[in-house]
Amino acid sequence: MSKSERTDWECIRTDTGPDLKLFQVRFDWLKNPRNAHTVKATVLESPDWVNVVALTPDEKVVVVYQHRFGTMETTTELPAGIVESGETSKEAAIRELKEETGYTSEEWEYLGYVEPNPAFLNNRCHHWAARNVKQTLLPEPGDGEHLAVDVMSLKEIGQEISEGRFRHSLAFTALSHLFDLRSLLMNS
Amino acid sequence: MSKSERTDWECIRTDTGPDLKLFQVRFDWLKNPRNAHTVKATVLESPDWVNVVALTPDEKVVVVYQHRFGTMETTTELPAGIVESGETSKEAAIRELKEETGYTSEEWEYLGYVEPNPAFLNNRCHHWAARNVKQTLLPEPGDGEHLAVDVMSLKEIGQEISEGRFRHSLAFTALSHLFDLRSLLMNS
Repeated sequence: MSKSERTDWECIRTDTGPDLKLFQVRFDWLKNPRNAHTVKATVLESPDWVNVVALTPDEKVVVVYQHRFGTMETTTELPAGIVESGETSKEAAIRELKEETGYTSEEWEYLGYVEPNPAFLNNRCHHWAARNVKQTLLPEPGDGEHLAVDVMSLKEIGQEISEGRFRHSLAFTALSHLFDLRSLLMNS
Repeated sequence: MSKSERTDWECIRTDTGPDLKLFQVRFDWLKNPRNAHTVKATVLESPDWVNVVALTPDEKVVVVYQHRFGTMETTTELPAGIVESGETSKEAAIRELKEETGYTSEEWEYLGYVEPNPAFLNNRCHHWAARNVKQTLLPEPGDGEHLAVDVMSLKEIGQEISEGRFRHSLAFTALSHLFDLRSLLMNS
């Protein structure tokens, strides 16, 4: 396979798997174009996700401390959530920032997206920046959330990374977009 | 909840869910310490993952073009895979680089790890750098893989990001660790 070749894997059969609430599982039987062997792929169908780098007027970042059910630990993260049906990613970003933290902003900038894991997830995570945010409302966490809100300088986030408390991959990719990793690479 | 408070969610009940091959599903019923409401959490139990920033003597990065079953598209990525039972993450990194690309190295450096998604995954993705890599073997892709191998300058990876072909979150976080996003933040 060369770079320009975008070889298709023929889908022989597709089955609906269990509904995991967070995801609808799908099983695809795909024929490998290299050797014609069939593999059964597990795909987790998921709505897109969104997270927000929310910057206060003095350039601090709004963070949430949140107990996470996967790792059973509390981590330092960015406000984030699911793009609900009918919402744009910007609307979801505005809503999640407001619900989780009570912060609002008039200045929104799209930073780009990543694929959380194209091997088995079919969705994107959109990164938004909100500038000059102010805490104008009370947070309204959902039933499945118990959050604490804080603000941190970028230096303090660096410290959180050093000390192993800031480790959600998608919070890293949001910051990589804010700092424009792409330009860093292109000017290297 | 304050930053120092690490409130536990009491687990009322736990059930084994379906085996999805990639993951063993687990359902936890957890009591929210804020309001005592019980939520059913879906946890995907997964081995750790690993990926590799492999640098040639002239500072090019080894990349793979791979058709991904989640998004049904071919993307530009770093060599990556699962840490098999009994392996260290370094052994997995050495093996995946060799199997997927045929490149080997004597110089390995641990860059750190992220949590791919602590909301529902219990695992880590370890990032390794390999320096002065050489293509000493033929790639040996698995049945479920059809890869093409290439090398790219950092500038070219920046271009791939710009053009939307490099978008796997964990490839971004590996590069963020290589470029030490943490120091960038702490010196900002």
